[in-house]
Amino acid sequence: MLTSDNAAGIHPDVLRAIADANVGHVSAYGNDPYTAAAEALFRREFGEDVEVGFVFNGTAANVLGLSSGVRSYEAVICSEYAHINVDECGAPERYMGKLLTVPAPDGKLTVDGISERILRVGDPHAVQPRAVSVSQVTEYGTVYTFDELRSICAYAQSRGLLVHMDGARLANAAVSLGASLREITRDVGIDVLSFGGTKNGIMLGEAVVFFDRELARNFAFRRKQGMQLASKMRFVAAQMTALLTDELWRRNAEHANAMAARLAAGIEAHPGCQITQRVQANAVFAMLPPEAVPALQAAYPFYIWNEQTREVRLMASFDTTVEEIDGFLALLAGF
Amino acid sequence: MLTSDNAAGIHPDVLRAIADANVGHVSAYGNDPYTAAAEALFRREFGEDVEVGFVFNGTAANVLGLSSGVRSYEAVICSEYAHINVDECGAPERYMGKLLTVPAPDGKLTVDGISERILRVGDPHAVQPRAVSVSQVTEYGTVYTFDELRSICAYAQSRGLLVHMDGARLANAAVSLGASLREITRDVGIDVLSFGGTKNGIMLGEAVVFFDRELARNFAFRRKQGMQLASKMRFVAAQMTALLTDELWRRNAEHANAMAARLAAGIEAHPGCQITQRVQANAVFAMLPPEAVPALQAAYPFYIWNEQTREVRLMASFDTTVEEIDGFLALLAGF
Amino acid sequence: MLTSDNAAGIHPDVLRAIADANVGHVSAYGNDPYTAAAEALFRREFGEDVEVGFVFNGTAANVLGLSSGVRSYEAVICSEYAHINVDECGAPERYMGKLLTVPAPDGKLTVDGISERILRVGDPHAVQPRAVSVSQVTEYGTVYTFDELRSICAYAQSRGLLVHMDGARLANAAVSLGASLREITRDVGIDVLSFGGTKNGIMLGEAVVFFDRELARNFAFRRKQGMQLASKMRFVAAQMTALLTDELWRRNAEHANAMAARLAAGIEAHPGCQITQRVQANAVFAMLPPEAVPALQAAYPFYIWNEQTREVRLMASFDTTVEEIDGFLALLAGF
Amino acid sequence: MLTSDNAAGIHPDVLRAIADANVGHVSAYGNDPYTAAAEALFRREFGEDVEVGFVFNGTAANVLGLSSGVRSYEAVICSEYAHINVDECGAPERYMGKLLTVPAPDGKLTVDGISERILRVGDPHAVQPRAVSVSQVTEYGTVYTFDELRSICAYAQSRGLLVHMDGARLANAAVSLGASLREITRDVGIDVLSFGGTKNGIMLGEAVVFFDRELARNFAFRRKQGMQLASKMRFVAAQMTALLTDELWRRNAEHANAMAARLAAGIEAHPGCQITQRVQANAVFAMLPPEAVPALQAAYPFYIWNEQTREVRLMASFDTTVEEIDGFLALLAGF
Repeated sequence: MLTSDNAAGIHPDVLRAIADANVGHVSAYGNDPYTAAAEALFRREFGEDVEVGFVFNGTAANVLGLSSGVRSYEAVICSEYAHINVDECGAPERYMGKLLTVPAPDGKLTVDGISERILRVGDPHAVQPRAVSVSQVTEYGTVYTFDELRSICAYAQSRGLLVHMDGARLANAAVSLGASLREITRDVGIDVLSFGGTKNGIMLGEAVVFFDRELARNFAFRRKQGMQLASKMRFVAAQMTALLTDELWRRNAEHANAMAARLAAGIEAHPGCQITQRVQANAVFAMLPPEAVPALQAAYPFYIWNEQTREVRLMASFDTTVEEIDGFLALLAGF
Repeated sequence: MLTSDNAAGIHPDVLRAIADANVGHVSAYGNDPYTAAAEALFRREFGEDVEVGFVFNGTAANVLGLSSGVRSYEAVICSEYAHINVDECGAPERYMGKLLTVPAPDGKLTVDGISERILRVGDPHAVQPRAVSVSQVTEYGTVYTFDELRSICAYAQSRGLLVHMDGARLANAAVSLGASLREITRDVGIDVLSFGGTKNGIMLGEAVVFFDRELARNFAFRRKQGMQLASKMRFVAAQMTALLTDELWRRNAEHANAMAARLAAGIEAHPGCQITQRVQANAVFAMLPPEAVPALQAAYPFYIWNEQTREVRLMASFDTTVEEIDGFLALLAGF
Repeated sequence: MLTSDNAAGIHPDVLRAIADANVGHVSAYGNDPYTAAAEALFRREFGEDVEVGFVFNGTAANVLGLSSGVRSYEAVICSEYAHINVDECGAPERYMGKLLTVPAPDGKLTVDGISERILRVGDPHAVQPRAVSVSQVTEYGTVYTFDELRSICAYAQSRGLLVHMDGARLANAAVSLGASLREITRDVGIDVLSFGGTKNGIMLGEAVVFFDRELARNFAFRRKQGMQLASKMRFVAAQMTALLTDELWRRNAEHANAMAARLAAGIEAHPGCQITQRVQANAVFAMLPPEAVPALQAAYPFYIWNEQTREVRLMASFDTTVEEIDGFLALLAGF
Repeated sequence: MLTSDNAAGIHPDVLRAIADANVGHVSAYGNDPYTAAAEALFRREFGEDVEVGFVFNGTAANVLGLSSGVRSYEAVICSEYAHINVDECGAPERYMGKLLTVPAPDGKLTVDGISERILRVGDPHAVQPRAVSVSQVTEYGTVYTFDELRSICAYAQSRGLLVHMDGARLANAAVSLGASLREITRDVGIDVLSFGGTKNGIMLGEAVVFFDRELARNFAFRRKQGMQLASKMRFVAAQMTALLTDELWRRNAEHANAMAARLAAGIEAHPGCQITQRVQANAVFAMLPPEAVPALQAAYPFYIWNEQTREVRLMASFDTTVEEIDGFLALLAGF
């Protein structure tokens, strides 16, 4: 299946970590050694002074991460294609504030696009811009460069805005940029990060990482009220530990990115196809020969991303095989 | 540990079910055969026409189950000790409506107590009672009888109120009453049920079961907006399947209840102790000799439930051992 | 001043009505003869079976009118320039649901524009379109024709959407179209109306008029919880009565529209000016000679509507005088 | 009528102030000289450094005043009879946080009562106490003494809690205590005040007065989003100016309190009657001879406060006449 990286299962190391944590009783709600160990790994990765908290899914990580700094009369500037805008059923608006969207054909915000939404500051009739949210990898599979991120963060800071990163696929971006997790988040100026686990081989769980500790101050209460406090926290934490051990996050993402690159190369070589977004991580956006789509979709399920243009999205994951990619390309070659 | 049934780990059958579901790719968000299988087991258990949806934890099951029927200007009548009132950090008020609480020394609502909170119906200055929420097992370890539940449901229906059951420990109640899950929920008149898994041996997950299908109509949207839609849903569903297979839920609860009974019997035999609530499920509330508490707590951690009276709560779980209970009692006997 | 129709004061008839209602004690919260009388006038105007409720301001009328039908995971389609989108500080998102905006250079929605936002129906990841909101008069001073409104309502109905009209300046539209209030609301298919009073000569107050009575069912509770229930309701009601007596609403609007037309004609005749929107009600949008703006603004305050293009908005009201208009034009003529 | 002080009309001075402000155009939304003048009077009354904002009604003043300091996972401690708890249709819970109620037979909070609700500080499962709200005059017509208020404020401060005063009838309390408005609010340690106008002779309007300026920082946005920003603000402000000019607030309250005292004295003298709360302001709570109630209620409408005990509430207002009181007593004397 090329539907999504969350159609994949659990990496064996992660499943083993769950089993290994399944010993006796420990305190619930995160007061346990497994959670402490996972948090320590996050601090090793991002710096000793960060605050981290685990939640169940990406929507919660985004909403709870942002809501620490954004009040109901404030707004978050994001791409019109941002997951928080189109795929979270209004959770950000309900639990946080308004979204001010910016056109972003490649999924990326720019300083210009952000600046155009900073309007009517101080005018009580208008929601007040308070944060910027970037998705890294973007929803279009593209990856912000260091310079792009630094520019956005510097500009945001100059305007008094927080910067949140939706890192559901942060690992794939780090691999794409040849960087550490910290270099493309905290070091470029991000204030709060949704660190994705589910799309990179774990069963379930995301982390909210606060580089600005002040934002973390009431996170424990927000998380509980946000219905995101796991009682048997150790089993979420153990998965995170597995992901951060021996760079499993990197190995998984490297594989997924490589499979996407292989797929893109094959598609590009086909005269009837067109790659529609730069392939920089684990997603391939493309136009395929219309007559090929039904057969391909039957054998290797994927999404028609845009019903009007018939652009498709093909997503590789940690367990996508070379056989799958080559099978897809062989089938495509017949058209 | 006698702290809580959520300090326990994962039953081996449940862990195996997770591993067994870890095969290849399946569609995310519940459109997969594992979820379909789990739902089928719920329908077998509760009736073919029920609607069921899985969420991450008990707070979410309670809030999302109730919010389907309760609007922000409506209210839910519950015990002042109800989990939704004291242990969910205001999530019910934020996402649903107001709580109208009733004194309940043994944790149980009564028709009289409910009726006293049905006031000012039609008066726009006052929140309007819309539902009753009962916890079965209660927060004090007591179990509503069939007659009590039937009376409450009949009365609620006569006043136009829905009845929600917080069944975080429903299995323990079913064992206590020698009943099926359906007999003590749907058959007595409950409209919507939070069916607990986490406290009965699974890793993570609860089910919202709608007997009144109209209440389920928009649950998919509420769940997603409520940040409770698991992408790799199959792994939550597989746990539920394990729990409902060969009555694992019953075996786990039988064991926990039996351990609590053994513990209570031992405590009761001790002249310096007093059992403070009827022991009907897996919890023992008691007064212990003050001088015994530190040593007991050090060896077998448990909660001081009431700081003022020094009443303690001792909680057995699916994996509590006879050795643990007898060790506790032996230690107690020394005082 | 040409700043806004809410910079004007109170029409003498309205002030007199307040004074006339100031006799003795009457029941609070709308259980009084003045409120009954005002409601009767609304029923006379819109049909005997409508439901009406008074609130303090336009934001409340819009939000409470819409929230009766729109849940938090649902969405309202509106122009990107709609008052609910840009001038209500996020109140619609906080108390109702998400807004899906449509580009509308003249302030008007079209069926095509609406249809493009009806996406992903039934997909729980996406907010579900539930209503359309049109502003009549629009925020750009333009007026929907009968046909335009009928088309929108028919299309909305065919897609299961409610239609709300923000009628902050409904009277000006009725005058523009030579129609009754009912003809351009209920009779074209509107479901719920925010009927504006404040911008047409009253001190304070708006009415929510429900043509679809089902939507009104819980309005009393929503209004109270929405902090919009006036205790001395008679004084809001008396103003509405004055507005609906002897068609004061029409006389006020006729005057305002005539003043805007006179102003527009004068501006159009000036070679350095450009009227930028059709002048159909009481607002004139125009480009003025840049060198003229400071002097004009000093003598006759008005808003620069668009800081970038320097488009201005000039707004006439029930008490704008011919002298004011002619003075403005004389001053303009000097440039 | 003895129903309520909001069944009364508008004091002539207030109506005149509205008329006097009805001259020409002024900027909307409070940027006008009338609003500036009213604010200046509040600063004269309460100190030059206070922040004040006007809203439409008491519910809004309470909710917006408190919501500046109280987040959704925090709680406000109040009497179980507090207006915010029983008469605001859940607005505080929806827009602010949870209420933790304290039994208060005479309507007054005590330090002991407050302290019993400060539990589980730092425990993320429990809402966190953040503020105390006292009603002065209380809902039972009683008045906190200076000492009582000072004790509560000192205790609250020692526990890190804000103190809010619901001063819907603050003027009546000031008269009762022979104090200035400032002496019984800011000077005893109150942080934020809902200053009532409607129940003391104005048409409509309340003020939120922030003694802790930090709390006022985002009030402009909260007020607008809370649907409480009047466009023709001058007419709300002018009423406040009238109330604070030549101590109209005091004269109105003195009269109302005197009428209540006269009424209470007469009732007390009747052998079949019993005064049930201390009469310290403008309300009389009493038991009347059951056979007298229908005739009395027909001639001088009032509320049966407690349907079970048949306790009644009789409320005097700024325009209650001696004839009315004496007529009531004469009628009562016949029973």
